Amino acid sequence: MSNERIIIGIDPGTNVMGYGILGVNGKKPRMIAMGVIKLSKFESHYLRLRRIHERVLALVEQYLPDEMAIEAPFYGKNVQSMLKLGRAQGVAMAAALIRDIPITEYEPRKIKQAITGNGGASKEQVQEMLRRILTIPADRLLPELDATDALAAALCHFYETAKPISATSAKSWKAFIAANPTRVKK
Amino acid sequence: MSNERIIIGIDPGTNVMGYGILGVNGKKPRMIAMGVIKLSKFESHYLRLRRIHERVLALVEQYLPDEMAIEAPFYGKNVQSMLKLGRAQGVAMAAALIRDIPITEYEPRKIKQAITGNGGASKEQVQEMLRRILTIPADRLLPELDATDALAAALCHFYETAKPISATSAKSWKAFIAANPTRVKK
Repeated sequence: MSNERIIIGIDPGTNVMGYGILGVNGKKPRMIAMGVIKLSKFESHYLRLRRIHERVLALVEQYLPDEMAIEAPFYGKNVQSMLKLGRAQGVAMAAALIRDIPITEYEPRKIKQAITGNGGASKEQVQEMLRRILTIPADRLLPELDATDALAAALCHFYETAKPISATSAKSWKAFIAANPTRVKK
Repeated sequence: MSNERIIIGIDPGTNVMGYGILGVNGKKPRMIAMGVIKLSKFESHYLRLRRIHERVLALVEQYLPDEMAIEAPFYGKNVQSMLKLGRAQGVAMAAALIRDIPITEYEPRKIKQAITGNGGASKEQVQEMLRRILTIPADRLLPELDATDALAAALCHFYETAKPISATSAKSWKAFIAANPTRVKK
């Protein structure tokens, strides 16, 4: 087993769910896998929820992620769609929670901002930036942009957690070094 | 193993979650267990979700239910509370879905109507009717009415599925008998 830190990114939806697996060795992130779970073929809401739960459980078993980053809008058209979205998030989260994997949520705007520098960027722009940052071969890109959206959530989480602690929040150099081992010159 | 049909009723919430286990032998329902999962002691939303998922998984392992009935309001104060409720429902449902246990949802009004004959009945009235129908000893009743609410969802499901098929919906006597084996005189 390597020392690589693994982050699973999830973009849950009730029609298509995207996922991306990011590996980080020191400061260098790489794409390990990404994909989508197509749910529209299942007529029943429960079969969709079951499929999401099963697939995320399988991804957790396969890639043994250390953390989960999830794209989570905090607004919604109506209470019905938010209830459905909450269920989709819930069954995805359950797969991480049962394995003690910490979850962090990011708003779509925050993810776009972190990846492209523009909170209003399009999904295509997010994909293009990811392709460059992670040098993803063109033939690994999927027509469904939910996959790169999920990978973007994982990369956003890496950026957020790799941020240096500010002078006010770092209690000591020891705490800073413990939190930022990759920033110490050896 | 007996031939008893087991229904688990769930009343999911983000502060208290109620559950009730109903056993049915032929036409006769009985209470096997009921209880609440108190979540307010957990500050983190994720720890609450994890606790719900773990407990429902454990209940499924212990009682091996054939079906799950869930109390699910179809309206809500705001999108934020519906998202949270959706997540709580999702992590509870995941525990059933992974074991192939079919889930049926009932609106609170429908459950109250089925148990008391009045869709606007209070939680106390629901508890009192359950106590009589299932002859629950007074010392088994809990101060938290979420437990009897969950048991009421299970009993409502039993009533709904025990209903005779109407002339228009029953395609044949064979189908009727297959769906209602306990209604056949031997």
